[in-house]
Amino acid sequence: MIFPFTAIVNQEKMKLGLILNVIDSSIGGLLIMGEKGTAKSTAVRALAELLPEIEVSCECRFNCDPKGYLCSECKEKLLQEGGLQTEKKRMRVVELPLGVTEDRLVGTLDIEHAIKKGEKRFEPGILAGANRNFLYVDEVNLLEDHIVDLLLDSAAMGVNTVEREGISFSHPARFILVGTMNPEEGELRPQLLDRFGLCVSVASIMDKNQRIEILKRKAAFDLNPEEFAEEWKEEQGRLAKRIVTAKERLNSIKVDDEILEKIVSITSNLNLDGHRADIVILKTARALASFREKDAITRDEIKDAAVIALRHRLKRLPFEDIEEEGKKLNQIFAEF
Amino acid sequence: MIFPFTAIVNQEKMKLGLILNVIDSSIGGLLIMGEKGTAKSTAVRALAELLPEIEVSCECRFNCDPKGYLCSECKEKLLQEGGLQTEKKRMRVVELPLGVTEDRLVGTLDIEHAIKKGEKRFEPGILAGANRNFLYVDEVNLLEDHIVDLLLDSAAMGVNTVEREGISFSHPARFILVGTMNPEEGELRPQLLDRFGLCVSVASIMDKNQRIEILKRKAAFDLNPEEFAEEWKEEQGRLAKRIVTAKERLNSIKVDDEILEKIVSITSNLNLDGHRADIVILKTARALASFREKDAITRDEIKDAAVIALRHRLKRLPFEDIEEEGKKLNQIFAEF
Amino acid sequence: MIFPFTAIVNQEKMKLGLILNVIDSSIGGLLIMGEKGTAKSTAVRALAELLPEIEVSCECRFNCDPKGYLCSECKEKLLQEGGLQTEKKRMRVVELPLGVTEDRLVGTLDIEHAIKKGEKRFEPGILAGANRNFLYVDEVNLLEDHIVDLLLDSAAMGVNTVEREGISFSHPARFILVGTMNPEEGELRPQLLDRFGLCVSVASIMDKNQRIEILKRKAAFDLNPEEFAEEWKEEQGRLAKRIVTAKERLNSIKVDDEILEKIVSITSNLNLDGHRADIVILKTARALASFREKDAITRDEIKDAAVIALRHRLKRLPFEDIEEEGKKLNQIFAEF
Amino acid sequence: MIFPFTAIVNQEKMKLGLILNVIDSSIGGLLIMGEKGTAKSTAVRALAELLPEIEVSCECRFNCDPKGYLCSECKEKLLQEGGLQTEKKRMRVVELPLGVTEDRLVGTLDIEHAIKKGEKRFEPGILAGANRNFLYVDEVNLLEDHIVDLLLDSAAMGVNTVEREGISFSHPARFILVGTMNPEEGELRPQLLDRFGLCVSVASIMDKNQRIEILKRKAAFDLNPEEFAEEWKEEQGRLAKRIVTAKERLNSIKVDDEILEKIVSITSNLNLDGHRADIVILKTARALASFREKDAITRDEIKDAAVIALRHRLKRLPFEDIEEEGKKLNQIFAEF
Amino acid sequence: MIFPFTAIVNQEKMKLGLILNVIDSSIGGLLIMGEKGTAKSTAVRALAELLPEIEVSCECRFNCDPKGYLCSECKEKLLQEGGLQTEKKRMRVVELPLGVTEDRLVGTLDIEHAIKKGEKRFEPGILAGANRNFLYVDEVNLLEDHIVDLLLDSAAMGVNTVEREGISFSHPARFILVGTMNPEEGELRPQLLDRFGLCVSVASIMDKNQRIEILKRKAAFDLNPEEFAEEWKEEQGRLAKRIVTAKERLNSIKVDDEILEKIVSITSNLNLDGHRADIVILKTARALASFREKDAITRDEIKDAAVIALRHRLKRLPFEDIEEEGKKLNQIFAEF
Amino acid sequence: MIFPFTAIVNQEKMKLGLILNVIDSSIGGLLIMGEKGTAKSTAVRALAELLPEIEVSCECRFNCDPKGYLCSECKEKLLQEGGLQTEKKRMRVVELPLGVTEDRLVGTLDIEHAIKKGEKRFEPGILAGANRNFLYVDEVNLLEDHIVDLLLDSAAMGVNTVEREGISFSHPARFILVGTMNPEEGELRPQLLDRFGLCVSVASIMDKNQRIEILKRKAAFDLNPEEFAEEWKEEQGRLAKRIVTAKERLNSIKVDDEILEKIVSITSNLNLDGHRADIVILKTARALASFREKDAITRDEIKDAAVIALRHRLKRLPFEDIEEEGKKLNQIFAEF
Repeated sequence: MIFPFTAIVNQEKMKLGLILNVIDSSIGGLLIMGEKGTAKSTAVRALAELLPEIEVSCECRFNCDPKGYLCSECKEKLLQEGGLQTEKKRMRVVELPLGVTEDRLVGTLDIEHAIKKGEKRFEPGILAGANRNFLYVDEVNLLEDHIVDLLLDSAAMGVNTVEREGISFSHPARFILVGTMNPEEGELRPQLLDRFGLCVSVASIMDKNQRIEILKRKAAFDLNPEEFAEEWKEEQGRLAKRIVTAKERLNSIKVDDEILEKIVSITSNLNLDGHRADIVILKTARALASFREKDAITRDEIKDAAVIALRHRLKRLPFEDIEEEGKKLNQIFAEF
Repeated sequence: MIFPFTAIVNQEKMKLGLILNVIDSSIGGLLIMGEKGTAKSTAVRALAELLPEIEVSCECRFNCDPKGYLCSECKEKLLQEGGLQTEKKRMRVVELPLGVTEDRLVGTLDIEHAIKKGEKRFEPGILAGANRNFLYVDEVNLLEDHIVDLLLDSAAMGVNTVEREGISFSHPARFILVGTMNPEEGELRPQLLDRFGLCVSVASIMDKNQRIEILKRKAAFDLNPEEFAEEWKEEQGRLAKRIVTAKERLNSIKVDDEILEKIVSITSNLNLDGHRADIVILKTARALASFREKDAITRDEIKDAAVIALRHRLKRLPFEDIEEEGKKLNQIFAEF
Repeated sequence: MIFPFTAIVNQEKMKLGLILNVIDSSIGGLLIMGEKGTAKSTAVRALAELLPEIEVSCECRFNCDPKGYLCSECKEKLLQEGGLQTEKKRMRVVELPLGVTEDRLVGTLDIEHAIKKGEKRFEPGILAGANRNFLYVDEVNLLEDHIVDLLLDSAAMGVNTVEREGISFSHPARFILVGTMNPEEGELRPQLLDRFGLCVSVASIMDKNQRIEILKRKAAFDLNPEEFAEEWKEEQGRLAKRIVTAKERLNSIKVDDEILEKIVSITSNLNLDGHRADIVILKTARALASFREKDAITRDEIKDAAVIALRHRLKRLPFEDIEEEGKKLNQIFAEF
Repeated sequence: MIFPFTAIVNQEKMKLGLILNVIDSSIGGLLIMGEKGTAKSTAVRALAELLPEIEVSCECRFNCDPKGYLCSECKEKLLQEGGLQTEKKRMRVVELPLGVTEDRLVGTLDIEHAIKKGEKRFEPGILAGANRNFLYVDEVNLLEDHIVDLLLDSAAMGVNTVEREGISFSHPARFILVGTMNPEEGELRPQLLDRFGLCVSVASIMDKNQRIEILKRKAAFDLNPEEFAEEWKEEQGRLAKRIVTAKERLNSIKVDDEILEKIVSITSNLNLDGHRADIVILKTARALASFREKDAITRDEIKDAAVIALRHRLKRLPFEDIEEEGKKLNQIFAEF
Repeated sequence: MIFPFTAIVNQEKMKLGLILNVIDSSIGGLLIMGEKGTAKSTAVRALAELLPEIEVSCECRFNCDPKGYLCSECKEKLLQEGGLQTEKKRMRVVELPLGVTEDRLVGTLDIEHAIKKGEKRFEPGILAGANRNFLYVDEVNLLEDHIVDLLLDSAAMGVNTVEREGISFSHPARFILVGTMNPEEGELRPQLLDRFGLCVSVASIMDKNQRIEILKRKAAFDLNPEEFAEEWKEEQGRLAKRIVTAKERLNSIKVDDEILEKIVSITSNLNLDGHRADIVILKTARALASFREKDAITRDEIKDAAVIALRHRLKRLPFEDIEEEGKKLNQIFAEF
Repeated sequence: MIFPFTAIVNQEKMKLGLILNVIDSSIGGLLIMGEKGTAKSTAVRALAELLPEIEVSCECRFNCDPKGYLCSECKEKLLQEGGLQTEKKRMRVVELPLGVTEDRLVGTLDIEHAIKKGEKRFEPGILAGANRNFLYVDEVNLLEDHIVDLLLDSAAMGVNTVEREGISFSHPARFILVGTMNPEEGELRPQLLDRFGLCVSVASIMDKNQRIEILKRKAAFDLNPEEFAEEWKEEQGRLAKRIVTAKERLNSIKVDDEILEKIVSITSNLNLDGHRADIVILKTARALASFREKDAITRDEIKDAAVIALRHRLKRLPFEDIEEEGKKLNQIFAEF
């Protein structure tokens, strides 16, 4: 049993960052910065548990969406059988172990198969299992650079292409990337930071009553998970439905030119490299508007989107730590 | 023959820390800090020897509890045969060697089997054997970070999930984790420290009479282990029974709101990251109350639980070593 | 769907550098220096998409040009069958992963084949797939030196020769090499820099209107890629045709002695090692003249060619960074 | 031919340390500190040569003692055949090579057997061959820590337990551990030092007559080993008999409470970690009393035992080297 | 098509160093120090192209000279068939990749063959292919020391002997070793420097007219290689013939005692280690005399030979770089 | 063809050191310190060439002496066939490559054999081939410590014992160890230095006439090796005979007590670790007396032996380099 998402006390930004990525998975994932013991991993698992099941092609190693981009095996099956059998599956949280190798991440050739049968077959890696699921990377700043690179490339392209020994194989790899890092333990290179869509920071809750509430809920859940889940069932259902609806009406949200100008006027005032921030703010604001059941993006959505889209993209001056950047950003919005 | 647990002279906190983890294994293990030659390893082995045998599913590589969460192999057997044959086994102390690899820890694919039979089969690792047993990690601070990470993840989830070459396998991995470290030889990162439930420190006994007693008992045991065991048999039985009873009535211990407030009032006054300490204190206090044959947690249990639950979670100021932290903690309780 | 090349806002030098390499692939590739998020990768993919399909020998692992230099397998097929079947293929952008090994780059022996059949067969590497395509190397300065060396050797020779276990195999490896680097993250040794034909730097666009235009186009493309592509179809076709024409009439561009003298007079005034710059300027100027639909190289082409051919070949004085070199070069041309 | 033990000139403490470990192998081995060229290796080999042959179970890979703890293979044989065939074997000196791996030390699975037969079989390591023999580790301070750890664990437990790929195997591993180190070449961590039972230091002999005697004997031995052995035969036999007798009557040596108090009074005055020294002094004094043909331990045995049991267990103050510690210890005994 | 050797503008010392090594391959190779882009690699390839074809034993993996030292396979064939079939082959330039392993350099056992057939067979390495060819090592100072060692050993002995798993195999390995290095990028240990026969330095040509000539020739060659080759055909033939003649009459060049004294008088005045320089100067002077169509070595040949034989053998004083050494050497000859 | 030993100009100490080790191979090898290019390798090869052939057991992988200690394979053959077929073989110089692994040095199991036949067989290493030959280790100070250790252990014991996967194999490994080192390139640890029997230093010859003679001989040898060998044949034969005779009468050299006292009086005055020097001086002096055709060791032999036996055993004071030690030693002998 997993602790219900809606029973998590406070940590609103982290929860929103996760939800917005579910609503528009092209936002590009979420980087959570913060202390240990702040329910980061629990939140991701809980959200996956809350979401409705997805429809997948039966026995597909990549969880292909029967109505979307198909892997080469599903394409062939469709051709041969005229249709694809499907089943319903709950979304999973795939974890990336710290010492992961490139082969285990992207997949490789199936050596045993090759030796036994003499034919080359692709051996799927972690990215295969992550398709249409969450990919959770704890302490992403401790991964080797070339692994982070591969991860972010796949996340950006939505496809994992592997070339091994003259064979090229590709499969869909559209996942919601959630990374965590403790900035005290080492940085991510700016190139890599920039490729996470959103970034929030979490901290321990200091309010006594909230702490007691957290402890109460945790103790109640530990004692009798089923009963606890029952209590939160209705609220869970309500949120699930709201997310599904927001996802469905996403493309109908209006974006007029004034909104684009507003976004560019924010990013132009900051010392940013590249243009990725612009498009991320736009998409986040749109997902937010949809989640808030509005018909068009307003100034509020831009502001709220910018806060979580710019946090990790501001250039640091020497000796100025990431906390101070947060302040700088807040200052900009004070004048917004 | 193993030296009887009850014949160990002094070292009360360490012994209590071990016992409480047996009573409620969700407390999350014990970290023992201290000097060499202080019977740390002996104590764990002795406690395992003293506890009653556990019931396991026959031939199961994971010691599945027939009445609990089953591994996929046991599930299948249950389905096919309508029931599971069981046997009684003594709990073991599984040791983690210093240079352990990830594959040996979590298991991997059985390459020989794959080459011979052409089918993939899971090759269990150390965590398989550790299920429902003690996992003893000497000098945990000398392990590589990603190994400690995997270890603590499994300990926290109670499940070991391995993904290799497109195959995902999981089995129960509920063990009592006991780590030792000598803080003079290098630190554990705070993230990792925090995930050990309890922490005690041990030191050599300086009292002459106690030392003579230790020497006498050790010499007597070495000369004739059977005779020595016979002498301590009754006391051993008495403790075993008390632990079993405490475990059975654990869920009946009352926890009223005032207790929760009390716990939060302690942790809020300290500079802690995250909320893990709150729940650990609560569980430890409850196990303690049960062991002390009380019906409800009292102020004493909270105090005693906090001492062993907070030791390793206090943030260190620069130049302030772990011994001084101990003092700080004691000071807080003086005013409690 | 890939974003249309002609819809990329600004970044003219980068686009020109890519186009000139397509017109004369012996120029030797392009090194793009600059910040993250500046559409470097998008531009290369978009250009490949825009170019006409190429004719390749059917089932050839090296995309042999039926009218050009053939791999040993195509030669044999031609001998046995009296002709080669051909097919049309779109050019691809082959990416070089950061942690690539020598074997994966240049190819190696097919071990499984050797074990099963007892005969040695060449296992093509990434360079095989790159023949007649683009080879894109992100963050080339983070590759190991001996990999960069192999890469540039193949690029220079147009052939990849591999010797393994007494067997020598070679295949055509004529690709357009595009490397990127962020000079803040580490240098390339001058030996390696010198072997890239051209070098441009890119930066984020600061003009607000251009930024809004970029955001608008990206959002339009994301919302409906097919419709967006349709809008740009005509302009795409126009550029494609212009490149094809420039390529065809390349050898008819006149180069008189005065032009050679002019080139040498530039490079002699600079503190350059070796003579590679001279020939690169000549070839670039010729491709440029052809692209500009002129019959002969003029002073303008030399100037424009020199700017992108010399950028990375100027010797750096201590403490003088690459930006200042750019200024030095501009100064020279002011007097040109 | 090996140089006779009794013909070794001087070096009395080293010889005694070796003999006492033979009399009571639970003392825990000997660490020899000292210069090169001081016959350390010769002494161990010579002692092994002098001792009577031991009775072992025929064809057992672990030299099982037919009257002691049996390996799983011998247990099975005993069950199937009703008895064990035995043979006599001379004790060996097994050497641990410096670069030894964990697998070679403790044993591993027999891969070839697994591939050929499809069943898993334990492949014994060096500890298997060392059972009931000497294990000689030259320059133990240059071994990797985790190897020393494994070594000392086995030495302490008398059993080597290996877990590999879901298989657990254990066999007796009772050996006399002899380590050498040159303290100028690097330290052993105190944790590891403490686990050697005894420690002596050796130095070159400076007395001219003794040096001439050494040279004479060595030259005589080199010229005609058989003749030399003959000369020392009687003395060799005498010592062998004395050791055997001491071993037999070890358990009959009386230990009264005053002796225990005396031991604790020594160790309490020193700044020692843990209680291992107490029991080692007791055992060493008992072996010494037996070797000296006494019926009970006297003050002399305690003093002599303490000298070789405490040498390596005294905590070093900064800047104070191991030689000065020796002096400190002597000082304590002056007042004893 | 390869650029004609005789069309290379200037760089006389480098060209002479290569030619002299062809005339007397026991001189011991050439080390070229200098900047990038100075046609080093082109010159070697061009010289190989210009030289007449050599006669080799058919299908021999080592290019055995049918009239010289034969590999063990050719010996056996000769024995069995009474003679060796031969063919003509052009000399090749074998390149040593930077990351080369020992096994790939010297050859190793053919594992696949051993596994399949159960017999051991030698798997030739790069040195096999290099026999009677050029071995070109770019940036020799970046190779690992033990690789350079193996390389120079083979070069010195003319034989490559490999011992692997109890099998010893040797084959002729007489190649002309050409190494390049950029002294700014790291040194070669003096031991290794000393074992190159000759050493020249190359630099970019600064003369404008020569630069224009280089550019003109390169452009002409690139435009139409066949036509360009035709223009230089006669001069190429003339040089080829002169080299062949010089090689044939090498042993008839007279060397009188005065010449030996002269050589020793030079090297004695310098602070050289060992006597290798003496014999290298003698051989180089003889090859030079033969190339200059003289009957005996004169003072001029000694002087010219010494310049290229001593460059890399002078001991460096601290802070004195290799350029200053060149000056020192010139000074010595001013007084010669 | 190899340059004749007797034609080597000067370098008397090195030549004597080699010869004495041939006369008494238990002296323990020779360490040659000195510059590059001083014919060290040539001298060893030349001496091997000069010595008479040895008688070996046919097809034995260890060159077993049919009259000496036999390897296990020869023992079995002798048992089965009643005798051993023998053949004559020239002594070889086996070279130890710098990057040698432990397995290649001492041998290992034959994996292919094990996989194919399912039985374990020993795969001999370099030490097998070195038995009864010279083992030449260039730049011994650049080898890894544990390799040098293994080397010197085998050299000392005359036997190579390998334990792998439960199998123990040993074979004779009596070789003459010749190491070279350039002290400027790094030290050997004193422990390792001490285990070389003798040590000499070599330097370039500065005498002009000797240099001319060296050059003349080398040039004559290169021009016509057969003719040159013929010239030196008689002198070669004379030396070979003298060595053989010295070896035969070695055991008849008288050693009286005064000689032993003399030796000890030298070594006692020096600050040496251990007693190895005493026995080495004795053996060297005896070999020298035999080579000089004397019946007993005299004061001269002791003095000459001590010079080459003590060079590397003197303890260095800080800042005092090895050259100054040589002076110290000479000073001692001035008073001898």
